[in-house]
Amino acid sequence: MTQKQDKTRVTVEIRNRSYTIVGDEDASHVRLVASLVDQKMREIHEMNPQLDTASLAVLTAINSMNDYLALKEDYASLLGSIKKERG
Amino acid sequence: MTQKQDKTRVTVEIRNRSYTIVGDEDASHVRLVASLVDQKMREIHEMNPQLDTASLAVLTAINSMNDYLALKEDYASLLGSIKKERG
Repeated sequence: MTQKQDKTRVTVEIRNRSYTIVGDEDASHVRLVASLVDQKMREIHEMNPQLDTASLAVLTAINSMNDYLALKEDYASLLGSIKKERG
Repeated sequence: MTQKQDKTRVTVEIRNRSYTIVGDEDASHVRLVASLVDQKMREIHEMNPQLDTASLAVLTAINSMNDYLALKEDYASLLGSIKKERG
């Protein structure tokens, strides 16, 4: 594990549990990300009340990763259309 | 909850636990997403072996959401630069 001297440490609460996030992002950004994750977990919980926190979090991660990949494709196709236009 | 008749159901394994994903994506895409989540969880676990599955999954979700937001900003700025150029 790397030394954390230049990193920010932010404690956030997600589904009544605290997590300390260590990273380069500023605290307000970390809090925004955490609140979006908390919200997504709540939405998935409402549709699947039987799931425990670990499953909710795994499904939330899958969801976010899926959104990320879809946006990555959009980004690549936007970039492609620019290159074609300029070419 | 909506009826699932037109949805695909794919069972994936993440950290030795099975999850059934219901959605519109095809099975191979769901498996790709799940393998990326599994890999990210393994990476976070290697750096933080004391964390339980729920924490690992929450941190993975935070990580993926963060990547998504960063890419969303990149996408918006790319779109902005195109508009400016055409403007």
